[in-house]
Amino acid sequence: MAYDYDVIIIGSGPAGFSCAIQSSKFGKKVLIVEANPENLGGSWINTGTVPSKSLREAAKLIHKFHTQFADQEKMKPYQRFKMDDILRYKRSILSEKNRKVKSDLIKHNIETARGYGRLVDGHTVEVTLQGGQSVTYTAGFVMISTGSRPGKPEQFEIDHEVVVDYRSILELTHIPRRLVIVGGGVIALEFATIFSALGTRITILSAEKGFLPFLDDEIGAELRGILQRKTIQLTTECTIEKVEKNDFRTSMEVFYRTASEPDRLQVVETDHVLHVGHKVPNSEGLGLAEIGVVLSERKTIGVDEGFRTAVPSVFAAGDVIGFPSQASASFVQGRIAACKMFDMGEDEIAANVPYGIYSIPEIAGIGLTEADAERQGLKYKVGKISYSNLTQADIGHVDDGMLKMIFDADSLRILGVHIIGEQASDLIHLGQCVMQHGGTIEYFLKNVLNYPSYGEAYRMAAFDGLSE
Amino acid sequence: MAYDYDVIIIGSGPAGFSCAIQSSKFGKKVLIVEANPENLGGSWINTGTVPSKSLREAAKLIHKFHTQFADQEKMKPYQRFKMDDILRYKRSILSEKNRKVKSDLIKHNIETARGYGRLVDGHTVEVTLQGGQSVTYTAGFVMISTGSRPGKPEQFEIDHEVVVDYRSILELTHIPRRLVIVGGGVIALEFATIFSALGTRITILSAEKGFLPFLDDEIGAELRGILQRKTIQLTTECTIEKVEKNDFRTSMEVFYRTASEPDRLQVVETDHVLHVGHKVPNSEGLGLAEIGVVLSERKTIGVDEGFRTAVPSVFAAGDVIGFPSQASASFVQGRIAACKMFDMGEDEIAANVPYGIYSIPEIAGIGLTEADAERQGLKYKVGKISYSNLTQADIGHVDDGMLKMIFDADSLRILGVHIIGEQASDLIHLGQCVMQHGGTIEYFLKNVLNYPSYGEAYRMAAFDGLSE
Repeated sequence: MAYDYDVIIIGSGPAGFSCAIQSSKFGKKVLIVEANPENLGGSWINTGTVPSKSLREAAKLIHKFHTQFADQEKMKPYQRFKMDDILRYKRSILSEKNRKVKSDLIKHNIETARGYGRLVDGHTVEVTLQGGQSVTYTAGFVMISTGSRPGKPEQFEIDHEVVVDYRSILELTHIPRRLVIVGGGVIALEFATIFSALGTRITILSAEKGFLPFLDDEIGAELRGILQRKTIQLTTECTIEKVEKNDFRTSMEVFYRTASEPDRLQVVETDHVLHVGHKVPNSEGLGLAEIGVVLSERKTIGVDEGFRTAVPSVFAAGDVIGFPSQASASFVQGRIAACKMFDMGEDEIAANVPYGIYSIPEIAGIGLTEADAERQGLKYKVGKISYSNLTQADIGHVDDGMLKMIFDADSLRILGVHIIGEQASDLIHLGQCVMQHGGTIEYFLKNVLNYPSYGEAYRMAAFDGLSE
Repeated sequence: MAYDYDVIIIGSGPAGFSCAIQSSKFGKKVLIVEANPENLGGSWINTGTVPSKSLREAAKLIHKFHTQFADQEKMKPYQRFKMDDILRYKRSILSEKNRKVKSDLIKHNIETARGYGRLVDGHTVEVTLQGGQSVTYTAGFVMISTGSRPGKPEQFEIDHEVVVDYRSILELTHIPRRLVIVGGGVIALEFATIFSALGTRITILSAEKGFLPFLDDEIGAELRGILQRKTIQLTTECTIEKVEKNDFRTSMEVFYRTASEPDRLQVVETDHVLHVGHKVPNSEGLGLAEIGVVLSERKTIGVDEGFRTAVPSVFAAGDVIGFPSQASASFVQGRIAACKMFDMGEDEIAANVPYGIYSIPEIAGIGLTEADAERQGLKYKVGKISYSNLTQADIGHVDDGMLKMIFDADSLRILGVHIIGEQASDLIHLGQCVMQHGGTIEYFLKNVLNYPSYGEAYRMAAFDGLSE
């Protein structure tokens, strides 16, 4: 082999990291190119998944404690805590995670080059190092796992102090008293519920017609009820006109119109504005189009089911290929890509993939929604249970939540599971497991589940589905 | 049919309750006899499972909050909270649960008689009501689900104020500063870790040689490390000599000897003593032996795998039949018994049943331990992961924990799963599900699990088991 490496991986986030580890396990020689001068792991560890989930855990804990044991004075969490108190621990996680990623790479003999990579051809990567000089490496394969970044709004500027995006919001020094979130979708919901748990008054202004339209209808209804009880204001079909500072009152004003009243200019006052735009794939400056890699209109990289681009030696995975843009999926994609490159015959990944939304409470799902089942003309039944009927929820002081299973009316096989509530993103794995084995809802009646536990929700939903 | 009822159930705890509901679903006429004049649900709801688990949830929350966000003053939780603060919510759960049990019984047309039941023959129950008068009812079947009570110690008296048992400890008005627990086993561990989380200094004096010897050895070692870090003092092979009040110092003294130094009388000073004896089955006064029901030496009722006693029309389930004496198992036993009575051909319950120990952190397991696999001469392998390598544990500020899978070296089928750590009692259900479907550890590599989640521990343990 005349190449310097078996594979060069551009970007060390979850897709790149798992591709590197898997390739190394195959005995391949691997180089990772990482543009961040200090940290490995991409936005997964440094600015995205891990930091926001750490903030969420802290917010959940503070909220729970305050709801159950707060003093009479009723101070809001944002009056008692600084962001720094909450994220102090986060910083130690980050350095710990960075250390782990680095030591994993070293343990697997994976080399690292710090700089920006650009493809010269399907086997050659030119790396521009910090100092400006460039080095060229060759490899049998190249993996593009450069991730994404927050998209920018058209109507206003993000100064990353008063008007922030979903990365710079984590750099605030204090917890805002009021926050307007411009944008819909999962990230908007996650930050809305996290800051609401900290006492922040939240307004969501979304351009979309529905809010998270992919959710099962009943789960969506439960979610809207929860937002209402948290007094999170949600306005859909919104057009933002402008965002201005009102110096006199030292606060911000967000001007907008709604589809139902297009003639009325409305305004909401706030301390901070969080803009949640679409994730923009980091696909420029890599020389992709020049060598024949095909990009979509939205600049995501086109790949086949094995994550191979139009250039056979070039693969891509993670946020840079678009949907679903979740760390969990990126880990798996990177590993599969490595298997395909080196023809190690990895079985295809199971088609049914769960999603997890890290709002408070969590939302998770897999398989068909009730609307899907109806659309497909299936003869289905539903079994569901409210968390308020669940002992584990009772003793944990949890009121909100619902688990719903869609199953075939004749075979009793599970077609979909949808959960909103505490531990949803872990709890979904049990329904997923029965589904993937082609199991029926009777599984939950024939097997003992610990009591009390959240798993019991499945047993009760199965009972519900079978009775009537 | 000449009987008053299809089935009379003595005791409304989990076994009796589920037997009643299942029988009613079969269209049968059911009478429940309950001795407690106020509450239904037995010790499950009123004095056992639900109250202690509620206390545990509160202790976990307080401990977590204090570890992460406590003020500099470092007040111990027991200085800040009264038991009543913590259990206030518990009381509302209890009345809510009682309401639900009652309404479930009414919904299913199940009748209730308040009083003590005694069998006259295999089809006749005499109920002594509160007032003293007695009524006699007949039924095709009788179910004994009278539960258990805490055993009493020989060397000292329980006054339920200073020296308590595992029921009266829940009636304390304050959180003890120091607590000596006399006894080993699951309940001792649960209370030790719960009160330790509230700042109580804990000493466990156990007569047994090993501590929870049924645990997988590595899980046991992890547990001992955790107890050590919590500065919970554990002494095994202990003989209690006496428990005395030292009036002058207004505290209690527990005198004991250990197997290694039998000549030295040792003493530990404490505020309260918790005695955790074996559960004593409530099998007296029911006329059982008189009608031919066979009791064991330890007074548990002997039953076959369908929960039928030596008298064909009399069934028994729950704590009164002994092991495993867990609410989760009792629910299932009661339901199966109903199926057997009315010959409704319920499939046998799956043989592999998980256990859950509600200590802080939790412990759960199913299937073979590594020692079991070795003893059976199996060709097995182990895959394991420490929680410290788990992102979800990191962001939740969780240090302790371990997940371990034992699997067949050739087929990769899972033989056992053992977990100590946050969410263990729910997390075990996923391993159980793969096991029950005869699945292999490859399941965790071929399926996407949410990230971050505790479920990811399975993926990492599977990787560990397959590597090298």
